[in-house]
Amino acid sequence: MTAPPATFSDTYREFYRHRRVMITGGLGFIGSNLAHRLVDLGADVLLVDSLIPDYGGNLFNIAGIESRVNVNIADVRQATTMNYLVQGRDVIFNLAGQVSHIDSMRDPHTDLAINCQSQLTMLEACRQHNPTAKVVYAGTRQIYGKPDRLPVDETHLVRPTDINGINKAAGEQYHIVYNNVFGVAACSLRLTNIYGPRQLIRHNRQGFIGWFMRLALEGRDIQIYGDGSQLRDFVYVDDAADAFLRAGATDVVNGGVFNVGGPDAVSHRDLVTMLLEEAGAGRAQYIEWPEEKRRIDIGSFYTDSSKFVAATGWQRTVGLRDGLRRTLAYYREHSAHYLESKS
Amino acid sequence: MTAPPATFSDTYREFYRHRRVMITGGLGFIGSNLAHRLVDLGADVLLVDSLIPDYGGNLFNIAGIESRVNVNIADVRQATTMNYLVQGRDVIFNLAGQVSHIDSMRDPHTDLAINCQSQLTMLEACRQHNPTAKVVYAGTRQIYGKPDRLPVDETHLVRPTDINGINKAAGEQYHIVYNNVFGVAACSLRLTNIYGPRQLIRHNRQGFIGWFMRLALEGRDIQIYGDGSQLRDFVYVDDAADAFLRAGATDVVNGGVFNVGGPDAVSHRDLVTMLLEEAGAGRAQYIEWPEEKRRIDIGSFYTDSSKFVAATGWQRTVGLRDGLRRTLAYYREHSAHYLESKS
Repeated sequence: MTAPPATFSDTYREFYRHRRVMITGGLGFIGSNLAHRLVDLGADVLLVDSLIPDYGGNLFNIAGIESRVNVNIADVRQATTMNYLVQGRDVIFNLAGQVSHIDSMRDPHTDLAINCQSQLTMLEACRQHNPTAKVVYAGTRQIYGKPDRLPVDETHLVRPTDINGINKAAGEQYHIVYNNVFGVAACSLRLTNIYGPRQLIRHNRQGFIGWFMRLALEGRDIQIYGDGSQLRDFVYVDDAADAFLRAGATDVVNGGVFNVGGPDAVSHRDLVTMLLEEAGAGRAQYIEWPEEKRRIDIGSFYTDSSKFVAATGWQRTVGLRDGLRRTLAYYREHSAHYLESKS
Repeated sequence: MTAPPATFSDTYREFYRHRRVMITGGLGFIGSNLAHRLVDLGADVLLVDSLIPDYGGNLFNIAGIESRVNVNIADVRQATTMNYLVQGRDVIFNLAGQVSHIDSMRDPHTDLAINCQSQLTMLEACRQHNPTAKVVYAGTRQIYGKPDRLPVDETHLVRPTDINGINKAAGEQYHIVYNNVFGVAACSLRLTNIYGPRQLIRHNRQGFIGWFMRLALEGRDIQIYGDGSQLRDFVYVDDAADAFLRAGATDVVNGGVFNVGGPDAVSHRDLVTMLLEEAGAGRAQYIEWPEEKRRIDIGSFYTDSSKFVAATGWQRTVGLRDGLRRTLAYYREHSAHYLESKS
């Protein structure tokens, strides 16, 4: 792999002007934030989302850009629909997925259908109907499981601790095989804990940070398991969206897998302290590890993203305190749209 | 992980006396050889096989033990059937699968259904209906992809080069997660190239060695890609069956993944030379790499099995020349049962 031209950081945004882009999971958390960015850059944006209740898709996420994007409600498992929708799209940001670890353990077959079958459907659609598309897949750091060493780089073993992690790993590997064997340009970004506006906060089955945000906003107790010393790295959603924009605009990443996280690690305890300070409400409550959580816990985890930084010049630009402040401000204004039982 | 008692190598066979055992893919190559061993050891043996044409299942594989095993034709994807069949089984040797790399690239969805969906179905059946079962999964060295170093041990990255390898890796990981989270005792044996009697030789889409065997028997040309210098390790099927017996009889392997291969590496060229010598017929023909093969080729590959040897005392006992001789003798006598269009 070689790096893109030194000027890439100045020019990648221009790449998207009039570019025909599709985002699967486009009404979800990261997808919708990416859509806002793409609209600003002048792209022709098609958002595909199933709006399955509780999965994160929310029409309010595109408030303000409704008239500047096309929305197509569809399930990425549905092959004939995907065969049609991929046609003519230059870049596909492939973010649709089931993201709850907990749900995957309760209903592994649905997780398999959404995170594996749908990825094959999407990639087959490209292979057969749009082989020149570029696909950027939303992977996850979760596939590493409990790390042997920190920070975790891409040479670390993939050893997921739950069904969702296994299926997300397979979904990622399909992209790499389609890149290498069938020439459908593809790469994967292994995202760490992403947070920010437009994240689902209605239940606690999609990771802890959105849920903590809600508890803080409502002045409720935030439960921390054990002593809260386990470390994580966090990336504000605008920086995550920027990672997708960069990956979509250069061929040097094709066939690669890249951590997107870091650069520093924060304990659960310090995260909650910071969140409570910024929220001015809520309270930390330390409790024993529930057995079912302990069994799939991975201890401390943070990533080394230097491979992606070298390839694309990406940097995290929004610090954690600043990001939490922006996120709280968003939900203070719009929480009604995220707490209704129907999105 | 600790080793089993020093006497394990003397006692593990006794473990199977009156033991209630199930083999999925039990009419296939390795499954049926394992069945012959288990019958000899006095086990109560249930063979489950779908007999999907071209997959390797063959009723002739149990010739001689038909009256001493129970055969149940069923598809492991079918949940209600598996929920019933797993009940009361002490050990489940889980060998059912789609094993053709080539078919997986032509029809990835079927590969997904057979190698992922069916594994979840089997494991859910155990979790709900027989949580004290011990499951030994037939993994494959193919999940490693192109190796970074030789020999390959279990700390090597899993980086499959085709859809079959991705799905087999996911199937393996499900077993480990069910072991760790749901307490369904399970482990995986990552098998290298296994050869011997009862292997499918009717077509060339399930690996090269069965196919080479057939060509030699018929006195035809054996095509070798490039100079044939790429190395592989080979294990005779009786030794592979012994690996399953050992893994099924001890808890020290639970939650583990183990290479089963080695100990030495042989080039394609030397393998073919030896095979032609033993067959007294056929001819080697060196040809250029076909592009579609080259793209998913992994170069030389051989495994370090010392982890499994330490855990169970397993050793390869049949050398390659001896194994080829025995295999040729088997097919000379029984080839009609392996060349008919219907098994």
